[in-house]
Amino acid sequence: MSKLRFRISISLDGFVAGPHQSLQEPLGVGGEKLHEWVVQLEAWRRPHGLDGGVVNESTAVMEDELVNIGATIMGRNMFGGGPGPWDDSNPWNGWWGRNPPFRHPVFVLTHHAREPLMMEGGTSFTFVTDGIESALDQARRAGGKDVALAGGANAAQQYLKAGLVDEMQLHLASILLGGGERLFDGVDTLHSLALVKTVAAPNVTHLKFARK
Amino acid sequence: MSKLRFRISISLDGFVAGPHQSLQEPLGVGGEKLHEWVVQLEAWRRPHGLDGGVVNESTAVMEDELVNIGATIMGRNMFGGGPGPWDDSNPWNGWWGRNPPFRHPVFVLTHHAREPLMMEGGTSFTFVTDGIESALDQARRAGGKDVALAGGANAAQQYLKAGLVDEMQLHLASILLGGGERLFDGVDTLHSLALVKTVAAPNVTHLKFARK
Repeated sequence: MSKLRFRISISLDGFVAGPHQSLQEPLGVGGEKLHEWVVQLEAWRRPHGLDGGVVNESTAVMEDELVNIGATIMGRNMFGGGPGPWDDSNPWNGWWGRNPPFRHPVFVLTHHAREPLMMEGGTSFTFVTDGIESALDQARRAGGKDVALAGGANAAQQYLKAGLVDEMQLHLASILLGGGERLFDGVDTLHSLALVKTVAAPNVTHLKFARK
Repeated sequence: MSKLRFRISISLDGFVAGPHQSLQEPLGVGGEKLHEWVVQLEAWRRPHGLDGGVVNESTAVMEDELVNIGATIMGRNMFGGGPGPWDDSNPWNGWWGRNPPFRHPVFVLTHHAREPLMMEGGTSFTFVTDGIESALDQARRAGGKDVALAGGANAAQQYLKAGLVDEMQLHLASILLGGGERLFDGVDTLHSLALVKTVAAPNVTHLKFARK
């Protein structure tokens, strides 16, 4: 059975992006600190074409996340946050550049219909306007494997509230952001998700939840 | 050097009490779930006069918390949440009963001056109206050892914002509360606190922070 696997970096005070998000600062003020644990990893830097980096307790966690993933779902802001609706005069292709790191089909939740984008390296972006269940169905069929739910908060909240998340990996960064976008706003139950694995790593704690 | 050691149970969504706190429900709706990890421990039940209980990874964490503590600081709501100001016609003595579990001097941050209360078993309650630094000074002198900061959120926020916390132990319960009192409201930096130890235990993750 194909699982929907959600993973996200979150601060101690519950934010998945800092305050004052903008096109210039898509993660908000201080939001890049959420991802310091991963961008320093050799296992992250290599596939992004960067030299150097460290190997530590986070390495295996990050590598495990990629295993058996055939497609990704994300919210519109995570795709690009551009002004939309997009058309030939406004050909915004998101934050991810010409060769995004996914290398599989990505489904973007949006209210703006748009033709799919085929990128270099095997990544495609398909824009889904008929809701989260449709996106999940399409992602399962396209990838034939598990589906990654990449965020952001709004997309995650919709799937969590619907009880559709089979696995949740929180990368709890040991920082405070003091404001921004809260992961769990409006979500008051984990449904049947329970903590199954905890990994301590430098400046981050990885908490894995799965269906009981 | 006497340390100020803060410890508190917190939900995944950042709450240290549930919504709708009242005299009848001092922890708010669902707030008792924050403490399920501890009240099931044999190490907690025995000193509270209760039989049974389990021994697990949380046991040592809880026992470590009590080592070298000579006094406790808490906010007024944690002491009692009573209507106050107290006088002979309103002799509210808090939630803790005649024989509170502290067995050492407790300093209560409040705006209402009141004579100290001497309880059974070695616990006293002293009411401090001149601020957090005064309470910390008094607690250090009274106990001669480290000082426990027990909460609630408002007292913790004052000490965290002032950078006076030397050690912070978060008991991260694997639950959502969906509302209530947030620990880190108004706190946007950990000052020099860094994660030093993570302990995985059933339904809770213990995160210990100390000065770098």
